[in-house]
Amino acid sequence: MRLVVALGGNALLRRDQPPTADNQLANIRRAAAQLARVAGPHELVLTHGNGPQVGLLALQAATASGGQAYPLDVLGAQTDGMIGYLLEQELANRLSTPREVVTLITRVEVDPRDAAFRHPTKPIGPVYGRAEAERLAAAHGWALMPDGAGLRRAVASPAPLRVLGLQPMRWLLERGAIVIAAGGGGIPVARGDDGPLALHGVAAVIDKDLCASLLARELQADLLVIATDVDAVFVDWGLPTQRALGEVTPDNLAGQAFAAGSMAPKVQAALAFVRATGRRAAIGSLEQIEALVAGEAGTQLRLPSREHLPADRPARPRAALPRPGSS
Amino acid sequence: MRLVVALGGNALLRRDQPPTADNQLANIRRAAAQLARVAGPHELVLTHGNGPQVGLLALQAATASGGQAYPLDVLGAQTDGMIGYLLEQELANRLSTPREVVTLITRVEVDPRDAAFRHPTKPIGPVYGRAEAERLAAAHGWALMPDGAGLRRAVASPAPLRVLGLQPMRWLLERGAIVIAAGGGGIPVARGDDGPLALHGVAAVIDKDLCASLLARELQADLLVIATDVDAVFVDWGLPTQRALGEVTPDNLAGQAFAAGSMAPKVQAALAFVRATGRRAAIGSLEQIEALVAGEAGTQLRLPSREHLPADRPARPRAALPRPGSS
Repeated sequence: MRLVVALGGNALLRRDQPPTADNQLANIRRAAAQLARVAGPHELVLTHGNGPQVGLLALQAATASGGQAYPLDVLGAQTDGMIGYLLEQELANRLSTPREVVTLITRVEVDPRDAAFRHPTKPIGPVYGRAEAERLAAAHGWALMPDGAGLRRAVASPAPLRVLGLQPMRWLLERGAIVIAAGGGGIPVARGDDGPLALHGVAAVIDKDLCASLLARELQADLLVIATDVDAVFVDWGLPTQRALGEVTPDNLAGQAFAAGSMAPKVQAALAFVRATGRRAAIGSLEQIEALVAGEAGTQLRLPSREHLPADRPARPRAALPRPGSS
Repeated sequence: MRLVVALGGNALLRRDQPPTADNQLANIRRAAAQLARVAGPHELVLTHGNGPQVGLLALQAATASGGQAYPLDVLGAQTDGMIGYLLEQELANRLSTPREVVTLITRVEVDPRDAAFRHPTKPIGPVYGRAEAERLAAAHGWALMPDGAGLRRAVASPAPLRVLGLQPMRWLLERGAIVIAAGGGGIPVARGDDGPLALHGVAAVIDKDLCASLLARELQADLLVIATDVDAVFVDWGLPTQRALGEVTPDNLAGQAFAAGSMAPKVQAALAFVRATGRRAAIGSLEQIEALVAGEAGTQLRLPSREHLPADRPARPRAALPRPGSS
């Protein structure tokens, strides 16, 4: 079975943790321990978010003396190197049978006229209080968006159109390698004016779930897993009627509203994969990644079969209640 | 012909330039234009230094508020993502025949008991005046080393023992891909106490020329090219008798002294490759990379043949005189 597993940037660097390398490494180790068991006889493509990480780098570069801030495509590439390296190493350390784990830097083409460039919706970096957020926004020309009681920097998140380097991924998968690719939704690039084929970086962060969905379709994956920091997709989030969705079909999700920039793109990504391929997608907690792959946790989305499917079996509970918002 | 080309970190971000993304991109574009012509019918592995870039990231992370500085292995992985992405894109944009260009994040094993960990010799980041250097060293526990009239941060530079991921590089080369790998000398990792095979990042920056030499030997390259910011290897550097070396044999280099941390490892890397393989190595300017590959510029090192070889034909001159020191 060929799996594409997308790990949430917020799950790798949780918002309640100081953004240290140690905290990030500890989260990656927990995920790697389960992924190593999942890999087993399967073909595995791992991708990951980078929202907290790219925002932190942008903040460091903007506040540090000596050097204008690097553009978002370059900072995104930096996070891909960093997170890819840590994932590769921790996963390789835990494989019971030695296997090549290969981290690729992946560019993803977007449309430079995508409306997202005029309407930033992707939160990156830390959550700030109002005064601090407004000071930073004025100093660096940032857009802001609300996040809980605070504010975060918002950047453009155009739709992924084309993943570059698919062919090398296929070659490596055929040889049995585990591939880490398209981190942070891929590095956003677009065609410029200097020739029909030349590509250039653009200031954006692509949604990593939409990119993972495109990747899973292009690689003809059998399963798309979206691992985040909540247990499942919830309906009526924050209301007394709030409940987790277990086994669902696309029709069960129709007409529901999910948070833009966090759960909505996950649901959209899973739906696009399931509708295009007729195969399964799973959304749930990074801490239950093994059970997610096995179909035993989180929200499991598939097309209706002829047998009866319970529409919303509650997801397997976790110790603590999940926090609102996710990535 | 299989080529391994090592691009100097200082040549990608020159010490007389502000360390902006634009300056770095302009240098990479110049190199890519020539490399695209060089690639032609050859197999090409590109590697690159990261001294200025990793030092800049370390400085930003250390001086910015919000977050302890990330360790050098993690920062090195960040520079590999960044530089690899820019090289990949600019090279792919200039290839006359479309070809996959694949950037790999590469770990390189070192000995955790390497004496280099007690004697930091690798300069990274900007050149500081004395007061600023001493303030930073005290604040962040840095070692310092002289560089021209100023000081730079010095870090451990252990010997590369084993390049990880050689097999995926071979698979990709066999398929015709251009491979960018082992940036910054590779991410330094070492065996720890938690199992005989587990690897962990260590705080160091491996010399990228020594790593390129090891890589070229392991991949059985036909040619190793070390591109830097001076035209050639010089003897009597800074003296009235200073002269550039053109065609040389290993014997011509014996007994000469070259600058530690800059030209010495380049010469050592080239010698190791030529002696182990009997093939050619070239050292010279990034601005003449095409001529370096063709054997028409810089210092060309090979074993003596039966024909007479001119021992030190002057290297092709460049407009400006090279600055002392290089990487």
